[in-house]
Amino acid sequence: MPQTTAPHARETQNIVVIGGGTGSFTVLSGLRHLPYQLSAIVTMADDGGSTGRLRDEYGVLPPGDLRQCLVALSDADHTLRTLFNHRYDKGELAGHSFGNLFLSTLEQTTGSLDRALEVAGEILRIRGRVIPVTLSKVDLVTELKNGKVIHGESALGDYQLLSRFGVRKIQLSPKPSANPKAIRAILEADAIIVGPGNLYRSLLPNFLVPGIGAALKKAKGKKIYVANLMNKNGHTDDFSVSDHVRVLEDAIGKRGVFDTVVHNTKRPPQALLKKYADEGTPVTLTPECLSASFELVGANLLSETLGTQKKHDIYRTLIRHDQEKLASLLERVLTN
Amino acid sequence: MPQTTAPHARETQNIVVIGGGTGSFTVLSGLRHLPYQLSAIVTMADDGGSTGRLRDEYGVLPPGDLRQCLVALSDADHTLRTLFNHRYDKGELAGHSFGNLFLSTLEQTTGSLDRALEVAGEILRIRGRVIPVTLSKVDLVTELKNGKVIHGESALGDYQLLSRFGVRKIQLSPKPSANPKAIRAILEADAIIVGPGNLYRSLLPNFLVPGIGAALKKAKGKKIYVANLMNKNGHTDDFSVSDHVRVLEDAIGKRGVFDTVVHNTKRPPQALLKKYADEGTPVTLTPECLSASFELVGANLLSETLGTQKKHDIYRTLIRHDQEKLASLLERVLTN
Repeated sequence: MPQTTAPHARETQNIVVIGGGTGSFTVLSGLRHLPYQLSAIVTMADDGGSTGRLRDEYGVLPPGDLRQCLVALSDADHTLRTLFNHRYDKGELAGHSFGNLFLSTLEQTTGSLDRALEVAGEILRIRGRVIPVTLSKVDLVTELKNGKVIHGESALGDYQLLSRFGVRKIQLSPKPSANPKAIRAILEADAIIVGPGNLYRSLLPNFLVPGIGAALKKAKGKKIYVANLMNKNGHTDDFSVSDHVRVLEDAIGKRGVFDTVVHNTKRPPQALLKKYADEGTPVTLTPECLSASFELVGANLLSETLGTQKKHDIYRTLIRHDQEKLASLLERVLTN
Repeated sequence: MPQTTAPHARETQNIVVIGGGTGSFTVLSGLRHLPYQLSAIVTMADDGGSTGRLRDEYGVLPPGDLRQCLVALSDADHTLRTLFNHRYDKGELAGHSFGNLFLSTLEQTTGSLDRALEVAGEILRIRGRVIPVTLSKVDLVTELKNGKVIHGESALGDYQLLSRFGVRKIQLSPKPSANPKAIRAILEADAIIVGPGNLYRSLLPNFLVPGIGAALKKAKGKKIYVANLMNKNGHTDDFSVSDHVRVLEDAIGKRGVFDTVVHNTKRPPQALLKKYADEGTPVTLTPECLSASFELVGANLLSETLGTQKKHDIYRTLIRHDQEKLASLLERVLTN
């Protein structure tokens, strides 16, 4: 007799990915082909480049990180995905991404970023949902231990002495409201994946929105942190995996919140590390990491394709995660 | 017994509309709701405003007239139609139309305007087809009888002494190739509608593409010219309906090619004519028109809605055709 139901059939897992930009793009692109229900919760602190120009001139919410997540989740053909990621390299539009223009214009014509994401999601036939962590217009404000205050996410990126002087306080201004859809997604998730991504610029701003950390603490789903491959000079010099986790958990408001930390075990080739030296060195594993409350799950996660380091492209770094390797390691963690 | 076929049921008529810009937008918007198979053949000589900037900076074909026809034929909801017609009124994108950016960027990423129109047509769910009259990159060059040469379509629009000095020769440079799809559409049409539209800037450039006039002469379909409501000072001062027809037929290469001329019979209110005086006066009907080879079909075609005369909007003129009145008069002509 034919068996119509697999013995261990289970419902599709709801997976929430928290972050922004290239890191979320990598995780979502890999997981998209697997049978998960994906929700991307996206930082709204970006104020640089194309996004910054659109914020300044049209008073819109930052589209850049949302666009990358939309494209990552898109089931549309190559033509539309390429269109949305197209970056003008000359003329008056130089530096702008078409997808950013699309989202921002739709936000202007409909009066709602939510509606804009809905329409863009239909056109791009996305599998899953893209959720701004907040719909408030905010700036990232970083106060250093020496009293200096850095206004803006992009300015923080340019500032090279963060690790020397130390961060006293980092916050969003004015105080935003969490997007209720983000809270709900976190509470209903079977698993929540944070990272990879720039610690202060892409990951932390999500937890600086009041209510997001609390939701994560309350959530029943497995909490996974995907460690970065590389540290960023001037920001996270010599950070170990558990240093990254500590900064995140302090923002979330609870030590030990992450159940699992996924990390890369293969050292990038020396030649690549040399090229990358100005930007940073690999994130380290210290004895502290091994005795931490989280489970460490490692594998070779390195992309073999040498990055082209186009300046405005989403592949900005020479050393990066391989989408498929990361997805299959995450799949293993999610199945356990 | 139930009758399943109406006694006079006939196949859907193929209607070709030749022109560009607001005129074609009006005709297509009206006819879209009627059971015709519509093809819009669109001038490719525009080089002003948003379109001109995109041509100059990205070497693309002119998107503006195509966009208006796409929106006119669109079955998509209000949101997408509004998005495509959105004109930025501030910031670095001021003056650009989003639909123009969309088409031009897609032309760049796919390397083909044809493919760009296909994708835009799918997203906008257009009913019918939009066909560039040529895929060659051309400029309109106008030589006056006094020897002066005006380069460009937009420059021609700004030139106020065209009717004083008279046009010796008007042509596209370099010599373009007709889009084979345009030729085929004309030959297969049950009816071909030319106009309304700016005589020298929007209508004539279609027939300056070698092969288009010949196709029109050869075509078996009914040929209809929709007369403009108003003349343009400096270009068509005091032109009668048959003056317009004569200039068009000279470019087509055969006098008497139009079977029917559709015209407005209601004089615009005096207050509106006064406001419009700087731009022009109504197109006139002279005894010559009544004895011409074409059939004259008139009705009140005036829009009762006073135009808002937004500078960059598609509704640029205070005195304009009513889409529905024009469509129902055309329907009458097409049924005969």
